[in-house]
Amino acid sequence: MTGRDGGADLAPVGNTPVVILVRPQLAENVGAVARAMANGGLFHLRLVSPRDGWPQSIAWRSASGADQLLDHAEIFDTVDEAVSDLHHVFATCPRPRHIIKPLLTARGGALEMRCMTNRSLKVGILFGPERTGLENHDFTRADYWIRYPLDPRFMSLNLAQAVMIMAYEWWMASEQTPQKQLQTHATHVATKSELENFMGHLVKELDYCGFLRNQQKRPGMIRNLWHFFQRAEVTDQELRTLHGIVSELVRGPVGKQET
Amino acid sequence: MTGRDGGADLAPVGNTPVVILVRPQLAENVGAVARAMANGGLFHLRLVSPRDGWPQSIAWRSASGADQLLDHAEIFDTVDEAVSDLHHVFATCPRPRHIIKPLLTARGGALEMRCMTNRSLKVGILFGPERTGLENHDFTRADYWIRYPLDPRFMSLNLAQAVMIMAYEWWMASEQTPQKQLQTHATHVATKSELENFMGHLVKELDYCGFLRNQQKRPGMIRNLWHFFQRAEVTDQELRTLHGIVSELVRGPVGKQET
Repeated sequence: MTGRDGGADLAPVGNTPVVILVRPQLAENVGAVARAMANGGLFHLRLVSPRDGWPQSIAWRSASGADQLLDHAEIFDTVDEAVSDLHHVFATCPRPRHIIKPLLTARGGALEMRCMTNRSLKVGILFGPERTGLENHDFTRADYWIRYPLDPRFMSLNLAQAVMIMAYEWWMASEQTPQKQLQTHATHVATKSELENFMGHLVKELDYCGFLRNQQKRPGMIRNLWHFFQRAEVTDQELRTLHGIVSELVRGPVGKQET
Repeated sequence: MTGRDGGADLAPVGNTPVVILVRPQLAENVGAVARAMANGGLFHLRLVSPRDGWPQSIAWRSASGADQLLDHAEIFDTVDEAVSDLHHVFATCPRPRHIIKPLLTARGGALEMRCMTNRSLKVGILFGPERTGLENHDFTRADYWIRYPLDPRFMSLNLAQAVMIMAYEWWMASEQTPQKQLQTHATHVATKSELENFMGHLVKELDYCGFLRNQQKRPGMIRNLWHFFQRAEVTDQELRTLHGIVSELVRGPVGKQET
């Protein structure tokens, strides 16, 4: 699935959450995280004590063009320092822990974050290191936990995919795209009168050729044709095509006319 | 973010959509797709004309334990063959095309798929090859398009992440987890009478030590304390701790008592 826009300016639009990677191991994953963040309109990346040091050129190579996020990444020694200027912190946590804390889904978390950022509060999201996850002390600065609903038989997510889902839900929390629409381009969904016009044409020809000769069944057959042609959202362009098909079928093969 | 369950049986629960990878290039990506599918409870994987042939052991290595999906993957030469037993086909398509077709978000698509599978219809989702995407002929068998709302400045998704979002939305479309809850473990959210009991203890000691000596302000101060202690969902265990704190603060340092 492509659609990359190489040189786009990815500067944050408004107040967006900070993604904090705690003790990330592979710089390649940090790059993949930056890419996933950019998909969802996130920008601010903080790294707490990255295992292999920073910067690492492999991160830029795996970011697929989300270089700006890496260029602006901030490095901290501890979680406490990385969250010190934030008002609220969310911690992703795939497994239950014996701590009393509000637990949100990714979707619920994204909605909470939107509320907070709209109040001009600074928000951060903690992601633990690959495999081991966050440690008990890391959670002490968190206001909320986030756990993604996933198939409990297989909860293994890599770091970039964990960030991808959160970034996606952040974006969706303010997204206005209709869940379903018809992509019509230069054409438009046909009005009832446009459909009536076509159906008149069709019925006239069906009467002429004898398809509707059974007068008792004729009204029901016409109603069923209406039902069929309305089941899809037919466009004016498609109706013109259908008009043409009916006309050409009636006219018969070009060769036949010429004889 | 970890949580992998190695030996789990990932057999499909009920009627689940088929993921169809059209001309995938890297076997490593096919493995990562299987992993993402398993996260969202998907199982059926079909490959149309994989570039490097099939099977490829690197796919199993990158599946992080979702081997069963790869073991059962089916191979086809063409999209037409891969969809021939399906009732409805969704095609992911990041860019607009000049084709008239219903366009869904990932979330809208997942809801449609749930409706269809609940009607015992067989559903498939087409994902195009890395970079190039699906071709015009591939779309002719599709009933719907799916396009993910993402930051338009940066729409680049790798194949596994595209599948991840769709699998996640498929799972979420039937997910019942509350968006927000308090994880309380052995304890429970305090009732008003448990809070009343603590507040009575606190106010008694605050009266005794003189903190509430301003009789005019006293009722308002007590109300504000109520408001504070109710802002969080306090648990019975935390109230016991707070009772203990008040008692110990009143008693003063252990050394002082002993003198």
